[in-house]
Amino acid sequence: MSIIGKNRILQDYLDEHHNALAARENVDSALLRQGLDKGTVTLLANPAHPDVLPTLIGRPATVKVNANLGTSPFCCDPAVEMDKLRAAEQAGAHAVMDLSTAGDLDEIRTGMIRASRLPLGTVPLYSLAQRCVAEGRDPAGFEPSELLDEIRKQAEQGVDFMTVHCGLTRRGAQLATSGNRLMGIVSRGGSILARWMRDHDAENPLLTHYDEVLDLALAHNVTLSLGDGLRPGAGADAGDAAQWEEVLVLGELTLRARERGVQVMIEGPGHVPLDLVEAQIRSIKQATHDAPLYVLGPLVTDCAPGYDHIAGAIGGALAARSGADFLCYLTPAEHLTLPTREDVWNGVMASLVAAHAAEVSLRRPEAVARDHEISRARKELDWDAVRAAALDPELVERRRGEHKKEKECAMCGKFCAVRMLDE
Amino acid sequence: MSIIGKNRILQDYLDEHHNALAARENVDSALLRQGLDKGTVTLLANPAHPDVLPTLIGRPATVKVNANLGTSPFCCDPAVEMDKLRAAEQAGAHAVMDLSTAGDLDEIRTGMIRASRLPLGTVPLYSLAQRCVAEGRDPAGFEPSELLDEIRKQAEQGVDFMTVHCGLTRRGAQLATSGNRLMGIVSRGGSILARWMRDHDAENPLLTHYDEVLDLALAHNVTLSLGDGLRPGAGADAGDAAQWEEVLVLGELTLRARERGVQVMIEGPGHVPLDLVEAQIRSIKQATHDAPLYVLGPLVTDCAPGYDHIAGAIGGALAARSGADFLCYLTPAEHLTLPTREDVWNGVMASLVAAHAAEVSLRRPEAVARDHEISRARKELDWDAVRAAALDPELVERRRGEHKKEKECAMCGKFCAVRMLDE
Repeated sequence: MSIIGKNRILQDYLDEHHNALAARENVDSALLRQGLDKGTVTLLANPAHPDVLPTLIGRPATVKVNANLGTSPFCCDPAVEMDKLRAAEQAGAHAVMDLSTAGDLDEIRTGMIRASRLPLGTVPLYSLAQRCVAEGRDPAGFEPSELLDEIRKQAEQGVDFMTVHCGLTRRGAQLATSGNRLMGIVSRGGSILARWMRDHDAENPLLTHYDEVLDLALAHNVTLSLGDGLRPGAGADAGDAAQWEEVLVLGELTLRARERGVQVMIEGPGHVPLDLVEAQIRSIKQATHDAPLYVLGPLVTDCAPGYDHIAGAIGGALAARSGADFLCYLTPAEHLTLPTREDVWNGVMASLVAAHAAEVSLRRPEAVARDHEISRARKELDWDAVRAAALDPELVERRRGEHKKEKECAMCGKFCAVRMLDE
Repeated sequence: MSIIGKNRILQDYLDEHHNALAARENVDSALLRQGLDKGTVTLLANPAHPDVLPTLIGRPATVKVNANLGTSPFCCDPAVEMDKLRAAEQAGAHAVMDLSTAGDLDEIRTGMIRASRLPLGTVPLYSLAQRCVAEGRDPAGFEPSELLDEIRKQAEQGVDFMTVHCGLTRRGAQLATSGNRLMGIVSRGGSILARWMRDHDAENPLLTHYDEVLDLALAHNVTLSLGDGLRPGAGADAGDAAQWEEVLVLGELTLRARERGVQVMIEGPGHVPLDLVEAQIRSIKQATHDAPLYVLGPLVTDCAPGYDHIAGAIGGALAARSGADFLCYLTPAEHLTLPTREDVWNGVMASLVAAHAAEVSLRRPEAVARDHEISRARKELDWDAVRAAALDPELVERRRGEHKKEKECAMCGKFCAVRMLDE
């Protein structure tokens, strides 16, 4: 396919950063280049994002974690969102998405772009829907040209990746809303587009204008995150006709993007029972020609609101082991309210646990070495080394706080198995 | 084998409670009786435990969750432990273990037995080791008769299940400490017994006196939880010779117990990388003749201290799906300190998420129906029904708190996908 030859910006990034990228991933740079050229790896980096940290998604790069941020109509305090951005960064997220739908969206977005080197993603449709509502229009009362303008503006502002639900067809929307599904459509973008198609009696404008979307993406090296507007929103809906209809279209759109030198990744489920996770991930990867796969969870149960970061970590670990490349976090606030700073922290951590567990299971040398190192440190009751190898050193420090003078931890004390045997 | 015919207490319980047991599990009572008779199911219920809730472990019974409680030398406040017992019960644990190693152990234990109808488990060796240390002896400086006396006393006090590391042989201890392992022995009981065998130059007293242990268990219908003193304490140690040596002995001991009409379950790992969980669980179940399997986690990574309830939920979900019957919780305090009340709550919840996800993946009708119900409620924005079907209704209530007057949740507000489509 030779994506690199058609994408000047990507080529320049590689010329400049290939050593740093290979070093960060601890992978041969020729292998990364090969993946980028075929489109099985994507490099998140829009040159308009000042000093962006170019970030690779897709094997052989490590599994990455994204944190969703942004205001909502009931919780709109941009300062709080900036604080959450710092928390996500500090916790170890590899990318963030600004999903704001309230307040001055341009200011929030450009503020985040300036404030963080992490690649930033958006859903341009959200901003447009918000503007429509602010102007007294229906959220789906926009012209296709307005959507393209929004994409262009955000690309110029420095957004590194954008969710565009180009694969949602009228047929797909019909399948999802014909009564066969428990939850129908749970994607906000999907819902807006389904409404648009119904109101305009026309096909999805992101699909009919896909070539123009590709032009805009190419001009700024925006990675298109081909959205799953029909992702299952309940375990019972996973793997139904609506979901697959969209996946198949995403597969076609992936090839069209590669033909033009545009980088894409695929968005995946959603709510998926544990026994179907591997089958879903492998099938989606195959149907979308091994494009990098960006999953939301998947949640392996529907009835854990308040603990969806855990339900998502279970599915995420298995998904990443099965081929998913990029985990979108879920926080304890999912399905309930907008996350707090603490929720953001816990969401990133849960996803990092899942990503790391998957990497260990794939015997990635760095992940295995880290697990070895913390075990060695644990055996020697070397708490400084335990802390250093832990995913959350600060938390280790805090929980050890009260008993720092003791050699053993306070769970077993002098009955510590490690100590009793060593003596 | 006909365990029931040899176990008078079990027979009496079944005669009295078989309808209630079958109703609680929503399973045919003949099927349960068959499992109990073969030993693939165990009934936790010691008649000396006042008003104990007889609890089934092993398919086709549902997956159960245990919460570990108890004082330690650095954190010894029995009132706090009683409070944690109430938290575990309220959160939905199906059984608890009192692992106290500090304070008046008899008082703590009998207090918990009186305070809760949940089956209570212990590790009699802990109490003995504590007494030894209190008397200036080595923790392993006890006579076998003292250990049998401790088991008898606790059985008479009403303990419903006891961890006894009968499968730990000198050969096993040798394999675990010969330098091939990263972590050696991480079980406290295993560590004490390995020390005892070395100091006395003799085989494990729980193995050499196994017949007497069986007599005591039979007399009170104590379920023997055949402990895994050599469980892997690091992912790198999973599946090594030491672990399997012990599993094979546990398989033999299972048959000897069944021959005598004694109920047993098997304790399993520990730390196991994600890709090995299914193989471990299936192999252990086979080697131990489908005895009920009680697992600790398994933890799918070593480097998540502070988030081990999540690492354990990932492994636990997969384990339960693969055949594990009883999940011992891990709390956020694991590897760091004794859990607080909040840790206990979060540990139970994480295990319930894992157990429920496994049940859904096995298409257990009740679990699937619950996921359907919360999804239906979610689609209708019927928050009362969401709360009622949630694993933690109180948390749903609390997080919804600020925005209760709004129909949508505060994550999407008026851009709610469900609402936008419904309109």
